[in-house]
Amino acid sequence: MSKRQMHLVAVVTTGPHMGSWLHPQAENDYLNGEWWTGIARTLEDAKFDAIFFADAQVFYGDEMVRKGGDLYLLDPVPLAAQIAAGTTKLGIGVTISTSLFQPYGIARAMGTLDVLSRGRMAWNVVTSVADREAHRYGMSGLLPKSERYDRADEVVEAAIKLWESFPADAYVADRKSGLFIDPERLDGFEYEGRYVSTQGPLTVPPSEQGRPMIMQAGSSPRGRDFAAKWAEIVFTYQRNAEGMQAFRADMNERLAKEGRAPEDCAILPSIQVIVGETEQIAYARRNHLYSLIDLDVALERAASYTGLDLASISPDATIDDLDVEGLEGSGALDVFLGTMKKEGLTFGETARRLALNDLGPELVGTPEQVADMMQDMFENWGNDGFIINPAVLPSAFEEFARSVVPILQERGLFRSDYSGSTLREHVLAPAAEQPADR
Amino acid sequence: MSKRQMHLVAVVTTGPHMGSWLHPQAENDYLNGEWWTGIARTLEDAKFDAIFFADAQVFYGDEMVRKGGDLYLLDPVPLAAQIAAGTTKLGIGVTISTSLFQPYGIARAMGTLDVLSRGRMAWNVVTSVADREAHRYGMSGLLPKSERYDRADEVVEAAIKLWESFPADAYVADRKSGLFIDPERLDGFEYEGRYVSTQGPLTVPPSEQGRPMIMQAGSSPRGRDFAAKWAEIVFTYQRNAEGMQAFRADMNERLAKEGRAPEDCAILPSIQVIVGETEQIAYARRNHLYSLIDLDVALERAASYTGLDLASISPDATIDDLDVEGLEGSGALDVFLGTMKKEGLTFGETARRLALNDLGPELVGTPEQVADMMQDMFENWGNDGFIINPAVLPSAFEEFARSVVPILQERGLFRSDYSGSTLREHVLAPAAEQPADR
Repeated sequence: MSKRQMHLVAVVTTGPHMGSWLHPQAENDYLNGEWWTGIARTLEDAKFDAIFFADAQVFYGDEMVRKGGDLYLLDPVPLAAQIAAGTTKLGIGVTISTSLFQPYGIARAMGTLDVLSRGRMAWNVVTSVADREAHRYGMSGLLPKSERYDRADEVVEAAIKLWESFPADAYVADRKSGLFIDPERLDGFEYEGRYVSTQGPLTVPPSEQGRPMIMQAGSSPRGRDFAAKWAEIVFTYQRNAEGMQAFRADMNERLAKEGRAPEDCAILPSIQVIVGETEQIAYARRNHLYSLIDLDVALERAASYTGLDLASISPDATIDDLDVEGLEGSGALDVFLGTMKKEGLTFGETARRLALNDLGPELVGTPEQVADMMQDMFENWGNDGFIINPAVLPSAFEEFARSVVPILQERGLFRSDYSGSTLREHVLAPAAEQPADR
Repeated sequence: MSKRQMHLVAVVTTGPHMGSWLHPQAENDYLNGEWWTGIARTLEDAKFDAIFFADAQVFYGDEMVRKGGDLYLLDPVPLAAQIAAGTTKLGIGVTISTSLFQPYGIARAMGTLDVLSRGRMAWNVVTSVADREAHRYGMSGLLPKSERYDRADEVVEAAIKLWESFPADAYVADRKSGLFIDPERLDGFEYEGRYVSTQGPLTVPPSEQGRPMIMQAGSSPRGRDFAAKWAEIVFTYQRNAEGMQAFRADMNERLAKEGRAPEDCAILPSIQVIVGETEQIAYARRNHLYSLIDLDVALERAASYTGLDLASISPDATIDDLDVEGLEGSGALDVFLGTMKKEGLTFGETARRLALNDLGPELVGTPEQVADMMQDMFENWGNDGFIINPAVLPSAFEEFARSVVPILQERGLFRSDYSGSTLREHVLAPAAEQPADR
């Protein structure tokens, strides 16, 4: 029997990650495609499933701009193409908003990336959070929250129809017969939704994995329904076994309603790893990282993340001080308030945690200890692996790849080499090691 | 004194170019980014100013699909990023339609490409020609022709404001002071046009050349006004000295009205080069290329290019047989009918020329003869160089680079090396060789 193995995906932003750009090991070479490709190669050498780029279209606040907190500087689509050119196996996830773009443009860009990378792309579907993003695109604002996923359903459905409108065997390119593409096999469908409309066929042939994977991070019930319908990779923020188990069970039910099996969708909670030569060094490094985070920046980020109004909240407020009645509950807000409540943290402390690690678990210790924690989570939480959020680029990934990955590999918990070459093969293949007697 | 030198730009599509994919030297590896990068390296080794990708969002007709006539398979934005990763000096032009996309998305994608390529990008601005392209993007159709350039003016103006909203000195990234970006220096302007609206600042810092160059190919009076206002590279289809001289004089007048000098805008006519060991071989190769072009495909392309209805036109029709009164005159139609008239060609013959070389001059001969023709055109036509349209990929560029470029370099008509590293330096620098006594 082959052993169940975890999936590892790295998440990055195209700009500084909170105070950590001030870290002495931070290189901050965000505008250099070769630097990003180097990071991707580190991950590929360590056999990660994928690197994925979070994104937003705007800067969220002046303090974050000034002090370098979670800025998205570059469009991830061209950056993904550069990384694809410099790697051969690593998957690449790109965030594109269904609220700001048309399905045809998304299908053409992501389809092209999938062809150029030979089947290594995932589309991270987001619905955007700030009206200012919509203003940038000539709209008066985003749709009401209740409708954003309705539009997202249409955009994803239409994009998949576009990808499927060009079957692989339609692309013949046979000099002898003179047939380049068989137009009879292209699907000139018409899609008429409530929010978007488009027509086939797409001009882009399918890739080695057919079409890009869909990845998503919905935490609200509506977001989970969306994920259950479309997503093949779900990332989530869970701080403990109970939360993850409940999320897994809930997702399995929703998947079943869509006629899908649990193994059709990899669920990956976000973690942050901070290793040290000793446990003491690791904790000292963690505390040093927290010391780099400016409280004003953390608060500004928390406000943009939760939608809460900073002016009315003291950093010292606890959950009991907050008037949370009547707040329009986004999944992000629920996670934030849930963390404050469960861990008894103040608003400011929670904001710092959000700033550093998106409220995911912190795995702090020696490489062996971190591997133990990952093994325990993987064996008992019900997740399929992890999204790894680096504190410092590129050193956090280098340290993890050198010290933790080999332990996971020795224990048979993580692949020692890729068994396929497409992202879908990496993520959805049951295990890298095949039984000897098959 | 430094000698005036020509600029050379290669134009390609991301799919087969009419019948020439049937040519025995054609590689047809259109879905392979490394193949495209190899072509780009051939051009860079030959010191070309740029490679540029024409584009359309749809296939124009079933015969073109079936027989491989002028298909655009891939989105050029990710492809440009792959090529940027594999080259260091060559400029890269990308076609994006102002009718289908919002200025913020264009500015973010092209700005990112410009940063990643270290200042080597040009945006080839088109307004799209087929209503079917608009249908793909959820619109009922394109704007009326008379308004398309009005919208294009707004989209380009807004994109430039976005690029300029992030001045280079706002990006500080100084660990000592803790200042990452100075928000005071970002321009949060509001743009409210008749067709598009957006807001600053853009998240993308400027590149080594500030912002991408603007390139354009308008031939109608309204298109020329647009080019005079915005374009730094204009490509044009001119078949003889009189036409080019008239176009140059007309453009100079229009540039002057915008307060711009002739040298602010490089004007490049499209040519096709077919070399042979002897003149006889070159002509035999030309005739062989024409023999590969299927008449039905050529006619379908001519119909989509001109807007003429094929059903009512015989391939044997001459200009006198056509009822051209009352046709809505696009620049493209005028060029087509002008060629039929001036050269006494039938509709079918003109369609074949259009198919092979977009009605530009054919330079057929030995490398020496081709260099002579290019020199004569460059010295007497009033152009600043050439757009080179390859008959067969990659061999047409390889042959040109090996045999014609060295002659042009020996004569001092073309740079022997790049004097700068950005596209704007390549195209608008007065000459590569500087005077010895400066």
